Amino acid sequence: MRRFHGASTIRRWRCVGAAVMRTGRRSSSSFLAPRGLQSSAAVAAKERESAASLPSRREKAWLAMAAEQSLRESLAEKQAAVDRQGEAVRELKSRSGASTAEIEAAVEALKALKVEHGALAKQLQAVVGSSGNGALSKEEFRQTVVNTLERRLFYTPSFKIYGGVAGLYDYGPNGCAIKTNVLSFWRQHFVLEENMLEVDCPCVTPEIVLQASGHVDKFTDLMVKDEKTGTCHRADHLIKDFCKEKLEKDLTLTTEKAAELKHVIAVLDDLSAEELGAKIKEYGITAPDTKNPLSDPYPFNLMFDTSIGPTGLLRGFMRPETAQGIFVNFRDLYYYNGNKLPFAAAQIGQAFRNEISPRQGLLRVREFTLAEIEHFVDPEDKSHPKFSEVAELEFLMFPKEDQLAGHSAKKMVLGKAVSQGTVNNETLGYFIGRVFLFLTELGIDKERLRFRQHLPNEMAHYAADCWDAEIECSFGWIECVGIADRSAYDLRAHTEKSGIQLVAHEKFAEPREVEKLVIAPSKKELGLAFKGNQKMVVQALEAMKESEALELKAALESKGEAEFLVCTLGKSVTITKNMVSINVEKKKEHQREFTPSVIEPSFGIGRIIYCLYEHSFYTRPSKAENEQLNVFSFSPLVAPKKCTVLPLVKNEVFDGVAKSISRSLTKAGISNIIDITGTSIGKRYARTDEIGVPFAVTVDSTTSVTVRERDSRHQIRVNVDEVAAVVKDLADGLATWADVMWKYPAHTATSADD
Amino acid sequence: MRRFHGASTIRRWRCVGAAVMRTGRRSSSSFLAPRGLQSSAAVAAKERESAASLPSRREKAWLAMAAEQSLRESLAEKQAAVDRQGEAVRELKSRSGASTAEIEAAVEALKALKVEHGALAKQLQAVVGSSGNGALSKEEFRQTVVNTLERRLFYTPSFKIYGGVAGLYDYGPNGCAIKTNVLSFWRQHFVLEENMLEVDCPCVTPEIVLQASGHVDKFTDLMVKDEKTGTCHRADHLIKDFCKEKLEKDLTLTTEKAAELKHVIAVLDDLSAEELGAKIKEYGITAPDTKNPLSDPYPFNLMFDTSIGPTGLLRGFMRPETAQGIFVNFRDLYYYNGNKLPFAAAQIGQAFRNEISPRQGLLRVREFTLAEIEHFVDPEDKSHPKFSEVAELEFLMFPKEDQLAGHSAKKMVLGKAVSQGTVNNETLGYFIGRVFLFLTELGIDKERLRFRQHLPNEMAHYAADCWDAEIECSFGWIECVGIADRSAYDLRAHTEKSGIQLVAHEKFAEPREVEKLVIAPSKKELGLAFKGNQKMVVQALEAMKESEALELKAALESKGEAEFLVCTLGKSVTITKNMVSINVEKKKEHQREFTPSVIEPSFGIGRIIYCLYEHSFYTRPSKAENEQLNVFSFSPLVAPKKCTVLPLVKNEVFDGVAKSISRSLTKAGISNIIDITGTSIGKRYARTDEIGVPFAVTVDSTTSVTVRERDSRHQIRVNVDEVAAVVKDLADGLATWADVMWKYPAHTATSADD
Repeated sequence: MRRFHGASTIRRWRCVGAAVMRTGRRSSSSFLAPRGLQSSAAVAAKERESAASLPSRREKAWLAMAAEQSLRESLAEKQAAVDRQGEAVRELKSRSGASTAEIEAAVEALKALKVEHGALAKQLQAVVGSSGNGALSKEEFRQTVVNTLERRLFYTPSFKIYGGVAGLYDYGPNGCAIKTNVLSFWRQHFVLEENMLEVDCPCVTPEIVLQASGHVDKFTDLMVKDEKTGTCHRADHLIKDFCKEKLEKDLTLTTEKAAELKHVIAVLDDLSAEELGAKIKEYGITAPDTKNPLSDPYPFNLMFDTSIGPTGLLRGFMRPETAQGIFVNFRDLYYYNGNKLPFAAAQIGQAFRNEISPRQGLLRVREFTLAEIEHFVDPEDKSHPKFSEVAELEFLMFPKEDQLAGHSAKKMVLGKAVSQGTVNNETLGYFIGRVFLFLTELGIDKERLRFRQHLPNEMAHYAADCWDAEIECSFGWIECVGIADRSAYDLRAHTEKSGIQLVAHEKFAEPREVEKLVIAPSKKELGLAFKGNQKMVVQALEAMKESEALELKAALESKGEAEFLVCTLGKSVTITKNMVSINVEKKKEHQREFTPSVIEPSFGIGRIIYCLYEHSFYTRPSKAENEQLNVFSFSPLVAPKKCTVLPLVKNEVFDGVAKSISRSLTKAGISNIIDITGTSIGKRYARTDEIGVPFAVTVDSTTSVTVRERDSRHQIRVNVDEVAAVVKDLADGLATWADVMWKYPAHTATSADD
Repeated sequence: MRRFHGASTIRRWRCVGAAVMRTGRRSSSSFLAPRGLQSSAAVAAKERESAASLPSRREKAWLAMAAEQSLRESLAEKQAAVDRQGEAVRELKSRSGASTAEIEAAVEALKALKVEHGALAKQLQAVVGSSGNGALSKEEFRQTVVNTLERRLFYTPSFKIYGGVAGLYDYGPNGCAIKTNVLSFWRQHFVLEENMLEVDCPCVTPEIVLQASGHVDKFTDLMVKDEKTGTCHRADHLIKDFCKEKLEKDLTLTTEKAAELKHVIAVLDDLSAEELGAKIKEYGITAPDTKNPLSDPYPFNLMFDTSIGPTGLLRGFMRPETAQGIFVNFRDLYYYNGNKLPFAAAQIGQAFRNEISPRQGLLRVREFTLAEIEHFVDPEDKSHPKFSEVAELEFLMFPKEDQLAGHSAKKMVLGKAVSQGTVNNETLGYFIGRVFLFLTELGIDKERLRFRQHLPNEMAHYAADCWDAEIECSFGWIECVGIADRSAYDLRAHTEKSGIQLVAHEKFAEPREVEKLVIAPSKKELGLAFKGNQKMVVQALEAMKESEALELKAALESKGEAEFLVCTLGKSVTITKNMVSINVEKKKEHQREFTPSVIEPSFGIGRIIYCLYEHSFYTRPSKAENEQLNVFSFSPLVAPKKCTVLPLVKNEVFDGVAKSISRSLTKAGISNIIDITGTSIGKRYARTDEIGVPFAVTVDSTTSVTVRERDSRHQIRVNVDEVAAVVKDLADGLATWADVMWKYPAHTATSADD
């Protein structure tokens, strides 16, 4: 079964991830206009809305690329002019008849050229090193977000007191609450609304399961070793780093050379071990820190391995994905579903990949939470009864043709994308639509979300179609959800390895007449001819494929006998007409047996959460305008706490009211913080805005209190005994801020942060 | 640091688990009166309520033990009588003068004695093999529950199509939904209501962390190997199996021998490798299947090991508990909490233990979900502000004194248990109360739940006190939650290993004067005396403990000089008075620095769920009384689905109404199943009762429908447009069945299952 198994089968997530890098570069350096420059999330939200009608972002991306190219050309020209003028100065100086004034003028001209060259070089540096529009660079923006996230314990490097371990992160209280909220919403949006069968299988997996799936043989990355220290590096990373550094730092690069390096980055994922090795030699790439020579690239399996039980004989791995747990349970789940298709199973759980050199913070880690769906369908009917519910959706799609033609992603109506065949089938289209709704409801900016189709070379040969939900963040376009029609591959692989038929049946209303090939060896004749070998010849005859059988039948009919290879004997034998009857017979069939196709949406929860952090982050000036305050504009659905309760001033009576409101909120299931530190109200608002708490209840009397909305900073006044119910409705999405603004009086007294 | 580290430190969960076996036997064979004999869950619930006033269960347990002893004695007497009579018959037959009638009479007497012996043997077998009251035996009851659980996909053995792997189980759709509900409620009950800081750390853990915690050295079980096949067995299991089999099957056992075997089972967990080895030799125990000789017992580390990164040099393990992830984060979490104590951190996640030979189904597995709380307190103040909220609770407690005196668990009021010092402190007591509320709210029968205190030999030397919440099921009393006051042990261990101070500070309102020992070596004098060794002598002097320093000071003052051992030099040197000044000085201190104590409630989620299954299961006769129907009486809080929607008869109009009600329920977040198969309504009710769905909506008209409660099988009639709201209130616990029975008309038409 492994013969069908290309590396791309396994590297679903991985090669896709790498591909993101590649295609991402086409437009990633453009629209990181940092949210920090905007004055409030409300403004930001409006901008997001209106951006739909402005194609400027993508246009800007192309302008930036054009600018880079033209700058490189100008710089090369200017360099040539500098060289020529330098030569002229040297020539003048060495010439005996040249006047001082003449020499002076030539030197001045050289200086002027050098100044122009310097200015051009600076411009080019700005274009390749940042978003190019004078705003915060991607790296600066990311650093601000990440500093806030780490300081407020959204996440921290794991085992920090022992120096940490690359690629392992802890979710702190805020991150953990957000993760719980994201997973709850995932369960509501997919498992509950689609009636999926959720399962929960162990992480420890015996070798045989992952042999069947192909992971044991093929789940690898190419690695090189520092020949002196033994330190390991990913071969493609080294080449990419080399190319990127050249492109960014070497301003003498010709346009041609720059194009070549960009091309290498683009095709990196398709290069074999030999080709990567050749590039490393060609560019003279050495180990990053030591500058030692490197070994040839060789494959390293990315699964954490272990052994199960005390004997050490049963090899196991920590699962690299949750999907296999569903496939091996197919028979039970199909039975549970009343032996009916279609149905979907789902699983949320940890997955493990022993990355060679993890980078990009939360985006490429060694342990992460996956949420996977396996939707099983009849391969002959991939329609979806609820497709009409998503058919009108319109969003950025990036079909393979557009990628190959060098175009960028474009807005498409989903129903049209399916009807014109851009998306292979309705069920795949339905999940693309549901994933769009899931991500945007969480708070992902729909202008920085696109669905990119896999290119033919990215996809396994058996896959019918595959789309990745990619989200743009400061690292570029990041694959966060893969949605693949994997046909019958996985169930067939486990059927073959386990010998258990993972199949479905369709009962016919009326029995159908079908033609079937019947091979009937005559054991008597074969016994007479082959004695002890009879059994092996019988088995070989029965195991013939249809085409072989028909060929043999034809030969027997025309010549009366034929040579027939019996593999188990290691030789051919002569078969005569009386030894076997091969006939196509008509039979009545009452049902059809088939291996279901599987459509698999697979969610990298940590990646989605990280992108959500970047999309939700903005800064605004403090009241005194002497510093920028950080805000996460999380919706109540994902916010780590729904409400902060604060007495306006430190005061026992107000503290008592605040505590009682906090208790009522808790009883109602609304997570909240109570902040009775003596700090100024402005500082306390800033503190709660910085972790994205959407509402604050401020106690300034014993009868009524104010409720403040984080982004608008508007406040309303509500009675103490009503406030928990008002906040609960807001937090549960049963009321909007506009609703309550209309219902309750605005609180207009100047508060500390307005 | 390892010198303080007894095996009991580490084996918290494990040795406790084993101890459960031990103490559990004292009463485990008594009250498995199977729920199957009861007519409905409502009745069952009432019985649970009233059982509080009946001490009969525990009395029965003691009666059963007394019965067993008296039966063993009678049986031995009867055997002796049979032997004597047999001898008499032989003697008569061999005597020449005996008449046939005489012989006949003696043979008849022998037969009668043998019948009596057989009856006694049968009685004894019943007592040792079952609950002894003529009902289903424990094993039969368990088999019925487990069959239902596996058939309805609550759980299944993992990787079944490949033959499975011992100790690994999948949660199927029903089990998975229940697990999600239990964890959500855990988060509401603990994290939210107690404002805990939840974290989420990786399972992959580097060796150094588990060296510090002691797991690398001490997390072991004693194992023996089959000397011919190499198969591994747990030494204590083999001995226990041997003793149990003897006790159950060997009816010739004397009362003394039976007592000895019971004692061995009771102390099994305290036996050393040598003692276990001696017992195996004494009893002639061989390998279970092969009967081959066994090796001596030796320790096997129960952690799954792996390596992190590509070099193979960084050893890692799959975490055996989640607690360590919290301890290593203490500093950040303390800072996050405003540098204030007390606070609690919590974590839910997978833990891994490579059991030698897993058994007892879901109770001892190789991968499981733990939910752990680490509550950090000032060791000088373990009061709890909310203790009064749980002080009135009364439930079964089993203090160590009662265990040692051979008494059984008794009802105690928690407040009294703390005030009289039975429970060490308020915070520990508070968590015991909260755990009681958590478990009983889930549906654990409070008569089959007890809190057992650790015996002195079970507890680590540093632990202040430790109580296990044990739930009784067909396997006996099972530890499901451990609640331990671990003092400062864990934070000190990581401080020592990492060099990072994991401490807290208490700022004094007024600076306090304290006496401090100041050791001031004179570097000049020491340099003159010891030249190159000066530094090592200085370090040794500064490192002296207080007692050593005071001793040295006294010696220098009395004799002017003293011999002083410098370990780093490997010899003693002579120190004179002028080389060091040692003085007790008064200093002002502004704060106190200390290592917090930690109180740790640790929940085995899978064990709790399994016990919940047993406590919720009952059977009732079908309408035709020709079969027993299975029911799980899950509360709406834990039920895998809250509602089933069924058209009374197959009919397109009713199907449409059913689908629309199902959609409304889903939108309201109420999980539901729609059953539009043509099966009879009675069969469909039985199907939904068997997975514990509390409510069923039956569509028998287009305007109003009925809502049926699972246990009472009572029905009310509700309008179609109201029904989703009614079911939501019931499912969310906002209304009881009694409430809606009062509000809506009863539906009295005979339905299929009433």
